Amino acid sequence: MDKLHEENHLEIGARLIVTPSRRRNDRRPDKLRSHKYASSLGQVRRHGDWLWGWHTLLAALENPNRQPPRRFAATAERARSLSARFDIAGQIEVMESAAISALLPQGVVHQGIAADFPPVEPLPLSALGNPASGVLVMLDQITDPQNVGAIFRSAAALGAHGVVLQDRNAPSLTGALAKAAAGAVDKLPHARETNLSRALERLDAMGWRAVGLEGTASETLQQVLDGRPTVLVVGSEGEGVRRLVREHCDALARIPMAGGFESLNVAAATAIALYEASRPR
Amino acid sequence: MDKLHEENHLEIGARLIVTPSRRRNDRRPDKLRSHKYASSLGQVRRHGDWLWGWHTLLAALENPNRQPPRRFAATAERARSLSARFDIAGQIEVMESAAISALLPQGVVHQGIAADFPPVEPLPLSALGNPASGVLVMLDQITDPQNVGAIFRSAAALGAHGVVLQDRNAPSLTGALAKAAAGAVDKLPHARETNLSRALERLDAMGWRAVGLEGTASETLQQVLDGRPTVLVVGSEGEGVRRLVREHCDALARIPMAGGFESLNVAAATAIALYEASRPR
Repeated sequence: MDKLHEENHLEIGARLIVTPSRRRNDRRPDKLRSHKYASSLGQVRRHGDWLWGWHTLLAALENPNRQPPRRFAATAERARSLSARFDIAGQIEVMESAAISALLPQGVVHQGIAADFPPVEPLPLSALGNPASGVLVMLDQITDPQNVGAIFRSAAALGAHGVVLQDRNAPSLTGALAKAAAGAVDKLPHARETNLSRALERLDAMGWRAVGLEGTASETLQQVLDGRPTVLVVGSEGEGVRRLVREHCDALARIPMAGGFESLNVAAATAIALYEASRPR
Repeated sequence: MDKLHEENHLEIGARLIVTPSRRRNDRRPDKLRSHKYASSLGQVRRHGDWLWGWHTLLAALENPNRQPPRRFAATAERARSLSARFDIAGQIEVMESAAISALLPQGVVHQGIAADFPPVEPLPLSALGNPASGVLVMLDQITDPQNVGAIFRSAAALGAHGVVLQDRNAPSLTGALAKAAAGAVDKLPHARETNLSRALERLDAMGWRAVGLEGTASETLQQVLDGRPTVLVVGSEGEGVRRLVREHCDALARIPMAGGFESLNVAAATAIALYEASRPR
């Protein structure tokens, strides 16, 4: 199936189960329907788009920019709770917990609810970062879904305005990632950019300062962060921020580690950086 | 099999594979061989004691207080790397990656190395907290292995002196927990206490101040932490610190969350609290 055909098919599938309460989706800005975003959506779609867990699904249903679910499975008890809050009773396939498990990767804790949703759509960088204010998080080559999900959750809790991901090397915002995010993939906008260095140049032009997290930096986060609009740039645990991306940062900063040679998990490090960026000074 | 019999059996098993390099274990203080700690060890042992992952196993082999492994499996390449660093060539069962997978829970990433080790032993509270200095972390009813492992890792990186767990409701420091800790269960001592309120009373007598993390507290961590020796008391995401434990805290503090109603994951919140506690003031 070619990509265009696949997307047409999904468009039709989505239209078939649209309900009055989901018509809110029509408020979605037209620019999001452009080919560029549709094609990056097509790319992540192949990994499977199931979401599970109570908070994750509540956030998906409350997100006016979500397309309708392709399938929605819940236990009888969960279906009753959902029907009281959303106009989706006709869409829910009521099934036993074990039958829901059979739809999902082995061993996941679905809390009696799972749905196959088209992934939440990215925004253009200009919608995310303009005007410059507060904090954005940019993830360079972070591929572990648990870590990316945990970073979305911390970013939402600590008041960041959005997350910038790489178009090709970032995981789909579904499944275990969405579960770890506990609804934050629906509450916090994100952008997907092909070239993170260019994205930093465009953010710079909008008034953003880029601060790269690097264990060997001479200055600490406390010394470097100053309340200006800041993009926190975070790299993978092994490699850190890649050279070209690092060269596009205005400053580099480290988290002081009293424990010496130990290293922090990237999600823990990002939570600390977000906290330091939002701390009153 | 009664508990005493089970422990004797394991003692014998351990002795059979002792090697010269592992004789370092004999330096383990005698108090750790007491009935009390042996019996709490027996309790966690039933969950299975496999460790996997390169950093996790390196830390276990480098820990002089570990008993020897009961089984040690590695790929040929990993076995060569290990034999160059440790005197354990005779103990390693060289096998294919898939055969190692078959020993472990489904889907884990073992990086070509896995071992069945008696769990790392707890220290008495007096060994962990006396004299009072720096920071300890106390976990109240935190049961998710990923979170407990991540907290060990952050605590080691940010220079905490140890972790206090509940004797009965804390998970075993093996498997996925040890993997998430990336070696920190072997680098950071821990205590297991039956009654956390009593443990806080004893820590108070040693000179510790207890600060409970609570989302609804009126003061922030930045306002409450003051550089004195501090036990950070952290509860579960749903329930928080239990009432009786909370009443034994000298102060309660929250993490300011600009995102409003969102909540942080408990491991992210603990990382932030550890960072704030170690930040120069």
